[in-house]
Amino acid sequence: MENRKPLSIIKIGGNIIDDASELSQFLSDFSKIQGHKILVHGGGKSATRTAKSIGLIPQMIDGRRITDANMLEVVVMVYAGQINKNIVAQLQANDTNAIGFSGADGNLIQSEKRNHPIIDYGFVGDVQKVNTPLLQTLISSGIVPVFCAITHDKKGQLLNTNADTIASELAIALSEVFEVTLNYCFEKPGVLYDAEDDSSVIEKMNQELYAKLKSEKAIHSGMIPKLDNCFNSLSKGVQKIKIGHHKMLKNTNAIHTSIEL
Amino acid sequence: MENRKPLSIIKIGGNIIDDASELSQFLSDFSKIQGHKILVHGGGKSATRTAKSIGLIPQMIDGRRITDANMLEVVVMVYAGQINKNIVAQLQANDTNAIGFSGADGNLIQSEKRNHPIIDYGFVGDVQKVNTPLLQTLISSGIVPVFCAITHDKKGQLLNTNADTIASELAIALSEVFEVTLNYCFEKPGVLYDAEDDSSVIEKMNQELYAKLKSEKAIHSGMIPKLDNCFNSLSKGVQKIKIGHHKMLKNTNAIHTSIEL
Repeated sequence: MENRKPLSIIKIGGNIIDDASELSQFLSDFSKIQGHKILVHGGGKSATRTAKSIGLIPQMIDGRRITDANMLEVVVMVYAGQINKNIVAQLQANDTNAIGFSGADGNLIQSEKRNHPIIDYGFVGDVQKVNTPLLQTLISSGIVPVFCAITHDKKGQLLNTNADTIASELAIALSEVFEVTLNYCFEKPGVLYDAEDDSSVIEKMNQELYAKLKSEKAIHSGMIPKLDNCFNSLSKGVQKIKIGHHKMLKNTNAIHTSIEL
Repeated sequence: MENRKPLSIIKIGGNIIDDASELSQFLSDFSKIQGHKILVHGGGKSATRTAKSIGLIPQMIDGRRITDANMLEVVVMVYAGQINKNIVAQLQANDTNAIGFSGADGNLIQSEKRNHPIIDYGFVGDVQKVNTPLLQTLISSGIVPVFCAITHDKKGQLLNTNADTIASELAIALSEVFEVTLNYCFEKPGVLYDAEDDSSVIEKMNQELYAKLKSEKAIHSGMIPKLDNCFNSLSKGVQKIKIGHHKMLKNTNAIHTSIEL
């Protein structure tokens, strides 16, 4: 088997995007990461702000946004337009040859509209397939893809898709051709034993410990889908997963959580 | 000298974009055009609508939009987000492998902020250079680029740029490596002798006739920068330019204006 090249996939959330100086620092650090890389960004808060400014009332069911036609228009504008293009322009200023993508571009991420037996989530897509050959060609020619959390159904419909899931589906697909490290960056230094104590980072998380901490209800509700995504990705071939503050990208000795099967 | 492959560059304006069924028909026709192609789109009306819905008052000086920081945010959201990604998703549904771009993506179109001695146009960019090698690579691998009218200055600043100018700068740069036909599509069947009479299409326009019609004030004000762009493009190497209704793309016998030096 050929020797696969390393690929870093980095997912950042709304907390970095909403803070201009934090984002600028992150993008400068990101630009210095050696080798092939992909950035995936969310952007929940600015979409909510824009939605409110045009008089839309965001609808949530069980902490999940319901994406009706008007809200889809807003998230496409904010995620694929405002946030994505500003990140790309800043990366270009840092001499990183970024291209911003939605899943519709190059049919890179095709999804299908969620069909839930009880809740109508609206225009929300679950990922079906990644266009690995085109992504591999782009990455190998030195392009740094920057993905927003919008996909499409290949029938003309754009769909809102969870950014963590996009990062994990890209990691799974690309682990067939690259040695993939998936990095989930958020405001905390890692997965914590005690959500109130930033010094309680769990440095190594495996499925056994995860089951134990879930049963003890030590793992916070928002962390459960994130960790489920991680174990799913590892079981499907992703080589390495880290969760922590984005400073772990710059300083590899910085504390963080490594996820293992 | 090697035999250059043909490339069609097609620019569409707000009138097609604002009419969903017209746009859908155009994109279906566009998908059937053989060979390499690029789409460039404007989108003035929907940006104005969005700006108004969030309480911004569009500022115009001499018919030109002044792009302050808030208006830039709106045009980036609408042009690069909403319009661009919806066009790309529809092209994908027509089995055309489109990728949507701003000038920041891949540093494809670098511009500089306009520095006018009297009028401060705000965040408006004049094109400086096109990344021809990357575009050539993308086009030659079967990608159909879809450009919105947003560029960047390579220092992190996005800039609003005239869509006609983007089409003409792309045509000039790519005429070095392709045999380029530049098509300006608008609501009229071509350049008219009498702006009120759609049957008065000037089938061949050259510089001599243009000078004559300008001196007679038969050429309408909005048509002057468009034709200046055309003659500039031809003098810089673009092989062929057509102005007319988009049905000229489907039916090559449809009446239109051919521009010649």
